[in-house]
Formats: sequence, C-alpha cells, structure tokens
Amino acid sequence: MSPSTRDLNPSQRILLGPGPSDVHPRVLRAMATPLVGHLDPDFIQIMQDVKALLKPIFGTNNDLTLAVPGTGTAAMEAAVGNLIEPGDSALACIHGYFGERLAEMAGRYGATVTRLELAWGEVFDVGNIEQALSAGDFKVVTLVHAETSTGALQPDIQEIASACHQAGALLILDCVTSLGGLPVEVDAWGVDVAYSAGQKSLSAPPGLSPITVGDRARHAIEARSAPPAVFYLDLLKLAAYWGENPSYHHTSPISTMYALREALRLAHEEGLSERYARHARNAQRLWDGLTELGIDLFIPESLRVPQLTTPLVPDGVDADEVRHRLLEKYNIEIAGGFGPLAGKIWRIGLMGNSSRAENIELLLSALSHWL
Amino acid sequence: MSPSTRDLNPSQRILLGPGPSDVHPRVLRAMATPLVGHLDPDFIQIMQDVKALLKPIFGTNNDLTLAVPGTGTAAMEAAVGNLIEPGDSALACIHGYFGERLAEMAGRYGATVTRLELAWGEVFDVGNIEQALSAGDFKVVTLVHAETSTGALQPDIQEIASACHQAGALLILDCVTSLGGLPVEVDAWGVDVAYSAGQKSLSAPPGLSPITVGDRARHAIEARSAPPAVFYLDLLKLAAYWGENPSYHHTSPISTMYALREALRLAHEEGLSERYARHARNAQRLWDGLTELGIDLFIPESLRVPQLTTPLVPDGVDADEVRHRLLEKYNIEIAGGFGPLAGKIWRIGLMGNSSRAENIELLLSALSHWL
Repeated sequence: MSPSTRDLNPSQRILLGPGPSDVHPRVLRAMATPLVGHLDPDFIQIMQDVKALLKPIFGTNNDLTLAVPGTGTAAMEAAVGNLIEPGDSALACIHGYFGERLAEMAGRYGATVTRLELAWGEVFDVGNIEQALSAGDFKVVTLVHAETSTGALQPDIQEIASACHQAGALLILDCVTSLGGLPVEVDAWGVDVAYSAGQKSLSAPPGLSPITVGDRARHAIEARSAPPAVFYLDLLKLAAYWGENPSYHHTSPISTMYALREALRLAHEEGLSERYARHARNAQRLWDGLTELGIDLFIPESLRVPQLTTPLVPDGVDADEVRHRLLEKYNIEIAGGFGPLAGKIWRIGLMGNSSRAENIELLLSALSHWL
Repeated sequence: MSPSTRDLNPSQRILLGPGPSDVHPRVLRAMATPLVGHLDPDFIQIMQDVKALLKPIFGTNNDLTLAVPGTGTAAMEAAVGNLIEPGDSALACIHGYFGERLAEMAGRYGATVTRLELAWGEVFDVGNIEQALSAGDFKVVTLVHAETSTGALQPDIQEIASACHQAGALLILDCVTSLGGLPVEVDAWGVDVAYSAGQKSLSAPPGLSPITVGDRARHAIEARSAPPAVFYLDLLKLAAYWGENPSYHHTSPISTMYALREALRLAHEEGLSERYARHARNAQRLWDGLTELGIDLFIPESLRVPQLTTPLVPDGVDADEVRHRLLEKYNIEIAGGFGPLAGKIWRIGLMGNSSRAENIELLLSALSHWL
C-alpha cells in the first residue's frame, strides 16, 4: 500500500507554534458543510457576513474590507502589489523576517526601496521613522505590528501613521499575528492598509486572509497608471467581487469562507475585549511559568506580543532537539527561531483557540523535564 | 439577530455549473480533520502524497508538480507570472474568456502580447498557430484546453506543442476544466506548463490548484534575470516548499490539502480511464436528452467538452429566468453565458462527483417544464 492510498490520518497535534493555531470544532464542522457556488445568493450573503464580522476586529468602517483568497503572504502581496507602481519609492521598516519580506515584495513590484533596519527583536520609535521619512519622498511605508519572527510588538502605530501622512506617505501595517488577539484600531490609528491571516489569532484554517483598505489608499490604487501585475490579488477586482452585486473574478475558497465566518462568529460571541484579555492573561501565565523554569525571554515585557512568546534557548540546550521531543512525545508543536535567531529562541504561540490554560500547563510541565 | 450571527445554513444545492462541483462526503469529512502545522512531518508527507497522486492525472513525471495555494486563477497566474519577464513576447490564443484572461495577465507582467483570436466557441487548427508563430519570435504561447466560457475542447495539443517548440516557444496549457474529467497527457503531448483547479473535474473544494512544469519551462524560469513580481506564486519558492526538505514560503491551506488528497484518492480508486468514460457517458446522456427537448447545442459534438455542455437558449426563452427558477425551485445551479455569449447559452457542468445519472435525469425533467 503506497502512502497516498492510506486513509488520511495525521497526528493529533496541539498547535503552539506561530500559526496555524488549533481550530475550534465548530469551525471544522462548518467547513464540512456541502458547497454552494461562488456566485450563489447564499454565498454572497456569507461574504457580506464575513465583511461585517471583520470590520470591528480591524476597528474600521472601511468599505474595502474583505478576505483575500490565499494565506497571509497573499494578503501582504495584495497590499504591496496594489499600492506600488514601478518607480515608486517605499520606506521599508525592517525589524524581523516579515519586514524583510515586505521590502522584497516592494522591490519585486518595481519600487525603489529604502531600508530602515533595526536588529531583529527591537522596535522603532517615531523619531526613527520621522527622520527616515524626511530624507526622501515616499509613497508607501511598510511596517509590521507583531513580528512573527521575533515576538516584538511595535508600539505607537497612531503616531507613526500620522508621521507618514505628514510626509505624504501611506502606511501598510502587517497585522498577521496581531489581529484577533490584541486590539487593532485601523481607523483610530489612521492605518491605510492593514492585513492579517485566518490561521493565527482568529483560529480559522489557512486559505483566506483579511485585509482592509482606507480611502487614501483606495484612491492611490484607483489613480494607478496601469493595473498591478498581480491579477489574482487585484484589490479593485476583489472589491467588485465582494460588493453587493458581485462580478466574477475568481472562484472563492468556499469551504474556507464557511470556516472563517464561524471563527469570526466565535470571536464575537466571546467578545473582543474578553478575547484580548484572555490572550493577555494566558501570555502572562506562560511568561511567569517560563521564568520559574529559569528561562529568559527575548523581548522585554512591555514590548511582548501576547500571542507569540519567544523564550531564549538556555546555554547548552539544543533548540531543535527540544522542539522535536515535544512533537514526538507529546504532539506539541512549537517553532524555532530563524535567520539571525536560529537556535537562539523558540517561538511559542498562544493564538486564538490555542490560548488555553491547559496548553500552557502541559507545555511548561513537558519542558521542565529537559531544562 | 443580524445575518452574521445566524448559524451557517446555506441552501443544499446540486452543483451543475462550471465549478465548483459537488464535493464527495469523504472529501468533506477529510477537510474537517483537525489541523497539523504546515511544516509538520505528517503534512510534508501529505503534500508528497498529493504530488504523487497528481502526476498520473496530468500524465507527467515532472518533478515540479504541485498545488498552488489559491484557486484556478492563481495557478494561471503562477504559469504566466513565472514565465514572462518584462519585454518578452507572448502569443495568446484566444477563443473564449479564459484565453482572454491569459492575454491580460501576460500583458500585466510586461509581455508584448500578440493576440490570435477566433470567435468564442471555435477552436484553433495547427496551421493557424504555425502561421502566427512564424510571424514573430515568441517566448510563450498560451492556450486553453477546455474553454469554460464556451464548452469547446481544443484538439491537436500534441501537434500545437510541437509547433511551439519548433518555433522556440513554450506552451502554457490551461487545463482548469479538463483535468480529471478527460485525458490530459502533459508528457506525451509535450506541454511545458499545465495547470488546473481543484473544484472542477477533481471535485475538491476550491483553494488549491494543480500545476505541473516541465524541464524546458523550469530552465526558462531559472534563467530569468530577476525573480517574478509575484512572490506568493513564485514557482521556484513553491517547488522548494514542496521538496523533500521543505523550506518555509507560505502557510499552506492545510484543510484544503486534506480535501484535495482525498479527492485525488477517490479519482484513483475509481480508475482514471473509468472516470473519463463516466464523464463521456454522462455527457452523451445529457446531450441526447437536451436534443430530445428540442434544444440545440452550441458546440459540434466532436469538439464538446464532456464536463461542460453549452446548450443554446431557445428563441423566446429568458436564459436568466430559467436559471433562477432551477435554483429557486429545485436548488439546481447551472450558469449562463457571458461576454458575447450572454443570454445565448447556458453552461451545464457534469464535473467529477456532479457527473451522475440522477443529476441529469433531474435537470432534464425540470427543464422540460419550461421549454
């Protein structure tokens, strides 16, 4: 019997890495609902539901709020690919891998990219960014809210957005790990484009990724001299499909949309402020427990992302060996660091439905055997 | 109670449009399996299974065979965006909407596009294409195997591929509707890049789209002077993620991968030649029944796609009204024509799990009331 003829039977994991997170049984059941067509009146209503459920989580009234038909990288690409035209100038704020990826994408779409770099794990202050803005004439600034590669939370988004606007630039904010686990206030902060992913703090399966686009950014997209290279992620075409009278653009990932809708309903049933409080409470529990085990944390407490904790690997400990043992012995997934942080940190996610007291207790207990 | 707080409860449809098709219960159950991570050893094995299951369906031994993390348009874009560099010349063979879309994409990626056009519903003969090839120096030729907008099946793919190669061009073949419902022989025909979609004749849910890339095309991608604009669909990065030692590129749509694997297993359990025979048999049944109802078919029998039948709307009949009645009264989805065929044809899909005698009997009986 070849592997591909065996019944599907993946291991039962506890997902405590940087995403995907554990999906609630109600979301799994929703996903198993038989399909309707992508232009069915019932499906159009489901998309409108998703849009309505997403807006308060983004803290926005932006009409151009939808879920891109791909994973978080697709949403990142939708943001960059639609705003950048060849020859534009972009200021890429880089303090980890995903800031780097934003810079790479901007370059691929033809931008002249100015890199504003910090060591991985640090965060920008407004002065850094103001100074960089004053040295050029930028159309777009890219910034990561919660860096999934480091666990650092960028503060002062409102002040940074304001500095961008004073300099005539638009702010793209990566909220892949933050959205759904801590407050994101797109309108109050003045963020021009924010995007996320279903499979992090929202605990939907990967395959649809929320994005919201404000008026300034929308006008910039409408004012392009030519459409973006990327047709699949063309935001004006996506917006037309997500409108009240949809026009065909692509076949939506229907089952994943069912799942995202259910995951968003769960978030609203819990209540957004209670959800954020749960993430914060459970993060504190993990941090305290790790500290008791003698493990230091990479990011200072005031800058930590509650959904993603990055303990420093103690001297003499093999980071990958611990990770493999957790997976093999207890079916717990955590991740390692990469790039300059390879072997130096672990990445422990307490995202969405994975942010549970029992998971923390289990992980701390399992880790205690080897540390 | 706002719409978004209601339990998910879409109508129970019978999907006889141009995709998505009805998904088998086993596939729905597979999709409801709890998730593992996108770099989990179990998931890597699942991806290898999918690759192994796809190859015989594409009729290929290409190592670069995988499923793109998006719907069919994403696979189309992966093909075009990776092969075209700004300034390249492309010959776009257009005999329907999807040929048009390929031309648009090639233009967006900076190609000089020569359009070889036929009326929608016609097919190319090798001479047409040879003549067009001789008038230029083309890097890429784009062609649609089974035009989802017309129901016409392009014959002579092997001869066309050979003409392309003699002219030094690579052939991209759109197999979105054909793959899984009729023989596709990428290696025997000499097709350089072929792609499809999960939700047509394979009856997986939308969200992953098979693609296969031959050596000539792979070398052309490796020889690019700069990487493609589109990062999310960068085929060399996707190939690295689908390799034996995967490197992170994006978070795969895990649940959809479970579903695709199960759909592919079902195809192999049925047997590919029996599956193609079933599609042909059921198509004939539908064609005979429509003829008995006095309905003419748009495409001559020898050129019909068995998975997608396009009846001409009889004089005096409102195409949309019939379509809406079928949906409202019997929960049957069929599609209308669009572009130059709007109001002139219907599009009836008998794809994958939707290709069933009971569906045909029901549809013909329902149609007979109004025609």
